Amino acid sequence: MKTLTVALPGREYDILIEAGLLEQTGAQCRRVLPRTVRTLVVTDSNVGPLYGERVTRSLEASGFSVYTVTIPAGEPSKCAAWLERIWDEAMTFGLTRTDAVIALGGGVVGDLAGFAAATILRGVPFVQIPTTLLAQVDSSVGGKVAIDLPAGKNLVGAFWQPKLVLMDTATLDTLSDRIFSDGMAEVIKYGCIWDREFFDLLARCGDRAGVMAHIEEVLCTCCAIKAKVVMEDERDTGLRMILNFGHTLGHAYEKAYHYETYTHGQAVSAGMVLAAELGERLGVTQPGTKAQIEQLTAAFGLPTAIPCTAEDYESAVGLDKKGSGDSITVILLRTLGECAPTKMEKKELLALL
Amino acid sequence: MKTLTVALPGREYDILIEAGLLEQTGAQCRRVLPRTVRTLVVTDSNVGPLYGERVTRSLEASGFSVYTVTIPAGEPSKCAAWLERIWDEAMTFGLTRTDAVIALGGGVVGDLAGFAAATILRGVPFVQIPTTLLAQVDSSVGGKVAIDLPAGKNLVGAFWQPKLVLMDTATLDTLSDRIFSDGMAEVIKYGCIWDREFFDLLARCGDRAGVMAHIEEVLCTCCAIKAKVVMEDERDTGLRMILNFGHTLGHAYEKAYHYETYTHGQAVSAGMVLAAELGERLGVTQPGTKAQIEQLTAAFGLPTAIPCTAEDYESAVGLDKKGSGDSITVILLRTLGECAPTKMEKKELLALL
Repeated sequence: MKTLTVALPGREYDILIEAGLLEQTGAQCRRVLPRTVRTLVVTDSNVGPLYGERVTRSLEASGFSVYTVTIPAGEPSKCAAWLERIWDEAMTFGLTRTDAVIALGGGVVGDLAGFAAATILRGVPFVQIPTTLLAQVDSSVGGKVAIDLPAGKNLVGAFWQPKLVLMDTATLDTLSDRIFSDGMAEVIKYGCIWDREFFDLLARCGDRAGVMAHIEEVLCTCCAIKAKVVMEDERDTGLRMILNFGHTLGHAYEKAYHYETYTHGQAVSAGMVLAAELGERLGVTQPGTKAQIEQLTAAFGLPTAIPCTAEDYESAVGLDKKGSGDSITVILLRTLGECAPTKMEKKELLALL
Repeated sequence: MKTLTVALPGREYDILIEAGLLEQTGAQCRRVLPRTVRTLVVTDSNVGPLYGERVTRSLEASGFSVYTVTIPAGEPSKCAAWLERIWDEAMTFGLTRTDAVIALGGGVVGDLAGFAAATILRGVPFVQIPTTLLAQVDSSVGGKVAIDLPAGKNLVGAFWQPKLVLMDTATLDTLSDRIFSDGMAEVIKYGCIWDREFFDLLARCGDRAGVMAHIEEVLCTCCAIKAKVVMEDERDTGLRMILNFGHTLGHAYEKAYHYETYTHGQAVSAGMVLAAELGERLGVTQPGTKAQIEQLTAAFGLPTAIPCTAEDYESAVGLDKKGSGDSITVILLRTLGECAPTKMEKKELLALL
């Protein structure tokens, strides 16, 4: 088992990574939640049938009572209506401030359950059990929780750190190739923004089986990079913006296709390639970088370009939370493994696209 | 003008108290929000017509653009549906992370707008302009923001500190006697839990006109007491519970009458008297305390008892956020000006009632 400790001031928590870890859910939760009586498990219609019973049994064996809310799988559930439903269910269950919310599922479940945990009784303990590659490397570090609004993704939310994150690598085996590669885009992103050697390791892995042979190391490296960034900038006012490499443009793609045609990772993949191209055109990024990112994302079945209109870019750039007023900070690369956040006028950026 | 600085680690803010302060809204906001372009003003159907235009003009004169959301006056608006509406309006307005939400109104507006501010883009700057006595002495210090659920009051929310609180004491002149005395219950509470001399000052004031003659001092004393308590216990895990003197029972009354018959202050008034009686019966509270509280609350037209069934107490005690599991901490007094938080079994408490 690999253990990574995320040390935020006053709120340290562990990320545990191992195949078969679900069986230890109850015992591991009891370690960090000594006084908890009730656990509200939030899961979805895909993950619940696969792992819900195993998690419930393990929690009950450690003396927790369990109440489960199952949301329909998919991004549309990350909405105000389901948030409200979870709030109401928590009250029906009689959750108190020492009880806990547990997210069992991918990023949608984690974001929604985490925002519920952040707000129920003004905040209750939260445990994450991410079951997708994307959720494991992205959502489980950083404490960002949110729901979507009709106007866009993640527009309301909070910063809420978990007490514990459990990653059972065996849950990755049940993912489709599409959903696995969805997570690979973020994995590749960590190589791009922070760690050239890690980028090269991924290139050597070459495909899904190659990555799974090194999965504990891959997860641990990604989470360690994110943890370092987050520890320096918990409330997302500076360094943390480098995690958005590929994301401003990625959001434009996701939104243009109504979050249906492309996964988050597919959109980010095309966003990273375009950001590298922009950087090369502006003379910020070392030539050849775009080609290397293109090659690695393609190896994992990710798109390297997505068609999109000027209006789509405009609406995404205008609404993007990273923007303050008329200018926006775009994350470009200097070279593989090193970022160059670049402030520009929104109009200037749109003209380049 | 009186100025009280609330110093929380890394987030210091001022409370300014003066008659006519509304005219300075723009200038005072600009001082703490140098980079803000847009302000989303949340107000209600009572307060908006009285002060909305004055506040808007002042904000615009200082270069802010203003967008106003007016909710129907009254507790039912402190709900998920209006929260969602404010979220959507903020996006329509194009609010960014450096823009601000301004609450202009009483406690309902402050709690709802504050929770919106805490969650929009995971948190945007917030300014409070409380226009009722209750909101001025209670909601404007402490950072507690929330909405109600069908299951009860303030069941979901956050801790979110304002950047600035502006109290125009002239706004109190337009309050009905009922709403003024609503706030007096909390004012009297501060005397009960912390400051015997302040309790005696209120007794000498004798009525509304007497209090208004000392209003800056009264507001400043209440806020200073609350600030001291909050600074020691920002996240409400210990000392802060003394602020709930009279509130556990008060919630039972409010809930029993569906938040319609009695104001919050009226319910708290009867709750304080009953808590004093309980304390005297248990030998915790100095005999005669109940009579003094009864006399002072009655002087301000507040009820000293509210009829309520055993079932009403049961449901309120069961759901009260202060409870963990089967026991509950009830705030009793040792004497006027000094608290005695007392942990007891919920069943024991219910038997006493």
